[in-house]
Amino acid sequence: MKTALEVGQELVAICRQGKHLEAIEKLYAPDIVSVEPQPGPNMPAQMRGLKAVRGKGQWWVENHEIHSSSVKGPFPHGDRFIIFFHFDVTPKAGPMKGQRMVMEEAGLYTVKNGKVAQEEFFYHMGG
Amino acid sequence: MKTALEVGQELVAICRQGKHLEAIEKLYAPDIVSVEPQPGPNMPAQMRGLKAVRGKGQWWVENHEIHSSSVKGPFPHGDRFIIFFHFDVTPKAGPMKGQRMVMEEAGLYTVKNGKVAQEEFFYHMGG
Repeated sequence: MKTALEVGQELVAICRQGKHLEAIEKLYAPDIVSVEPQPGPNMPAQMRGLKAVRGKGQWWVENHEIHSSSVKGPFPHGDRFIIFFHFDVTPKAGPMKGQRMVMEEAGLYTVKNGKVAQEEFFYHMGG
Repeated sequence: MKTALEVGQELVAICRQGKHLEAIEKLYAPDIVSVEPQPGPNMPAQMRGLKAVRGKGQWWVENHEIHSSSVKGPFPHGDRFIIFFHFDVTPKAGPMKGQRMVMEEAGLYTVKNGKVAQEEFFYHMGG
């Protein structure tokens, strides 16, 4: 069974190839729980299950032009790890449509039985 | 009562001044719990209480020559936030004594009643 560190290393490697959606298929548990700090206009804060989480990922990829991205990590601690993401993107829809921006984000992942069972996202607010 | 975001912003500001120990006095709860991924040769993985956590901080400051440091964050999510630390240091003691190194570290902080009630550290392992 893979450790959290091993799952984190695979997740980072796949994200570095820009294949975030592939990571979901390969590394996530069927009952994965994905938690945002807040609900969005069309999105609950918490989603459960591969289908919902895949849908969220797909929506993000389809609605952002990604100029560049970088990934740092994993930072392991027991059955969890943190990954830092840096995206230079232009949203294709929504209130920020067409406005190029830098998104900085930390993901806190919990591994159970060798799969990602939970992901929680933390966003950087200036400074 | 301060929110997690406000506590995180204060903690980042104080750390940017290099005053990590002051942050403990000002922002930490009396029964603060501090958790490392693993115990050290002279240190349990988990410490509790201001005195113990202050001691750990003081030990670190006294046993590292800090060439430079940077802090990124806070990344808030509910009652928690993440801060990312980057240290360029030379240990003054221990097996790595005299070997200049870069330490990258993420702190996951939990706020209760306007104070930091728990800090958990995640360390970056290459890549």
